[in-house]
Amino acid sequence: MTEQGASVDLHTPVTESVPFYAIVPAGGSGTRLWPLSRSGAPKFLHDLTGTGRTLIQATVDRVMPLVAEDGVVIVTGERHAAAVSGQLPEVSEANIFTEPSPRDSMAAIGLAAAVLMKRHGDVIVGSFAADHVIADQVSFEAAVKSGIVAAQDGYVATIGIAATRPSTAFGYIHCGTSLGLGAAQDVRTVLSFTEKPDALTAQKYIATGQYRWNAGMFIARASVLLGHLREQKPQLHDGLMQIAQAWDTDERAAVLAKVWPSLDKIAIDHAVAEPVAALGGVAVVPAGFGWDDVGDFNSLAALLPSDDNAGSKVLGDSGQVVRIQSAGSVVVPSVKRVITVLGLDDVVVVDTDDAVLVTTRARAQQVKDIVAELRDRGLDELT
Amino acid sequence: MTEQGASVDLHTPVTESVPFYAIVPAGGSGTRLWPLSRSGAPKFLHDLTGTGRTLIQATVDRVMPLVAEDGVVIVTGERHAAAVSGQLPEVSEANIFTEPSPRDSMAAIGLAAAVLMKRHGDVIVGSFAADHVIADQVSFEAAVKSGIVAAQDGYVATIGIAATRPSTAFGYIHCGTSLGLGAAQDVRTVLSFTEKPDALTAQKYIATGQYRWNAGMFIARASVLLGHLREQKPQLHDGLMQIAQAWDTDERAAVLAKVWPSLDKIAIDHAVAEPVAALGGVAVVPAGFGWDDVGDFNSLAALLPSDDNAGSKVLGDSGQVVRIQSAGSVVVPSVKRVITVLGLDDVVVVDTDDAVLVTTRARAQQVKDIVAELRDRGLDELT
Repeated sequence: MTEQGASVDLHTPVTESVPFYAIVPAGGSGTRLWPLSRSGAPKFLHDLTGTGRTLIQATVDRVMPLVAEDGVVIVTGERHAAAVSGQLPEVSEANIFTEPSPRDSMAAIGLAAAVLMKRHGDVIVGSFAADHVIADQVSFEAAVKSGIVAAQDGYVATIGIAATRPSTAFGYIHCGTSLGLGAAQDVRTVLSFTEKPDALTAQKYIATGQYRWNAGMFIARASVLLGHLREQKPQLHDGLMQIAQAWDTDERAAVLAKVWPSLDKIAIDHAVAEPVAALGGVAVVPAGFGWDDVGDFNSLAALLPSDDNAGSKVLGDSGQVVRIQSAGSVVVPSVKRVITVLGLDDVVVVDTDDAVLVTTRARAQQVKDIVAELRDRGLDELT
Repeated sequence: MTEQGASVDLHTPVTESVPFYAIVPAGGSGTRLWPLSRSGAPKFLHDLTGTGRTLIQATVDRVMPLVAEDGVVIVTGERHAAAVSGQLPEVSEANIFTEPSPRDSMAAIGLAAAVLMKRHGDVIVGSFAADHVIADQVSFEAAVKSGIVAAQDGYVATIGIAATRPSTAFGYIHCGTSLGLGAAQDVRTVLSFTEKPDALTAQKYIATGQYRWNAGMFIARASVLLGHLREQKPQLHDGLMQIAQAWDTDERAAVLAKVWPSLDKIAIDHAVAEPVAALGGVAVVPAGFGWDDVGDFNSLAALLPSDDNAGSKVLGDSGQVVRIQSAGSVVVPSVKRVITVLGLDDVVVVDTDDAVLVTTRARAQQVKDIVAELRDRGLDELT
């Protein structure tokens, strides 16, 4: 297979061991986690689990045992590059890619895949969002390894998380039958992807036993991913290849400035995963490691241990929180103030230097409305 | 009547106009208004009504039209004297009395009455708490003037506020019949005082039409007040007279240090008002000026205008408050942060530099429990 031109050969397995590279797109502002997450300091830069590592640090920690040397590439916005670089001394500067503007996940992942292919040949790449939380490292590694087997076999492999509740916050994967891959018998074909469903649809999905949560991880040979992209979105593909050609040269800035703004803004799910699934080219690795995209304060709460016998959670120093007649609260104190809660259950209180949020766990998804309201009022500096 | 020795002659009216002096006891920490009110900065030092005047400033403003020249005396704790003095440039330093330690209202008011009597003769004194809010100045002045008439007639006059709801937060006055005072026909005898009742008792009181709220204002000739005190609490009386003798001399500090710690800690209600009412010596002026002791954030809310159509109140800059799907909230922002409330009704959020309170209006009276909890944790600096 050549870098450009030929159509994708889905099912020619490579037999030798192929190096694996992780691509970590680090974008998105996480407005449902405001005021912790800001456009200037999005959620992936924060330690949201109280482990001492930010989400992007934990993401890199997680993939490090699986990748080739210098095998992690971060793709992030210009305004976050310095913070990302500061948090990740183990990632070389050459592997921190900055986008001039957000162009969604296909451009970010496609660019990284194209540059990695130019640098290292037809390696296997996997994309891992910078802001997800995974509990079980051993299961995660096993799943990625199964994904690599499927990728060697020519598939775009994705990881399907066991759906433990009819969540309306995640996309779903409709799983087919086993592909009979030698070293990964549990890998199945993907029949289709579905967007975040309504509650009734989600319940129906769960009842069939055929649906899994889409963790947004895609593993494929670089040539396979880019080949699909060329077929599905040829302009986007060609733009990315043009940038990749110039990436490690003096031309990078000039070509980026010229080409990047013209690129399609599209998620990898729509650009590649969905159409290629329809062609039979996507595989799913069933996995059961605790996974969450920490979308809001309610899902964040689920990841924290309770610090009392009433299901209350604190992200930070629980010595700075006083609760009286309050169960199930989620409190995020800042370092400077004591937070006191009296007689309110399931309340969310988040304190920062310039803004305080008070809401309920049930309203956690609506926190983005506050960000919208602040922007309407011209208080963009708080968002 | 002499300063000391003779028994009280309750019903010898003075006919000439007697100068009136206001005594403002400024004590109490207002723990139910924490974290606004602190032991180091109690509620009377705060502008709790958004008028630009603190409660003690408003109290002095209110009595100023009624009193003789240099006619306001503040009695406060040593740690608050500087703040009180700073807020009240119109009160001379000689009229800001500092107590070495809190000895409740009888000692504070009795000392001021004794010093005023020594300085000015048998004037009429009235006590007005530093932390009450009164809406209608004209009615207030009229009521105090009726109280002065009753005081001239030898009574200890109190002001009874029309009870508009069966509050369990106030004491009640059981009113008798008119005393037939020439210039103040509506002044009645007091049958008894009752402490804060339970809800059922309060409802029964209201139903009789004979009960009024005790606003804690007492107006009497200095000699009458001190005469009653001498009869009811001779040791306290003698101690106060000893201090008063030394007050405007070089001996003040020495006598205060020796005598003050030995004084009975008792409220004027128990020391004088209740026993003297039983003797027929207390009169009540019925009044209907909007009155509140601003005991907690719920009563504070009642004093503030709504800044939306949903009964929400802001003490401070409402530009610093964002509410979405929230009715009836009470928010006190600090100058430094925006407070956002999403999906909670009747919530109370108070932000300060070192502490944030989140509770409900229904729990407002329990806020003192948070102060107790902080002290239990050794966080006294926050209280």
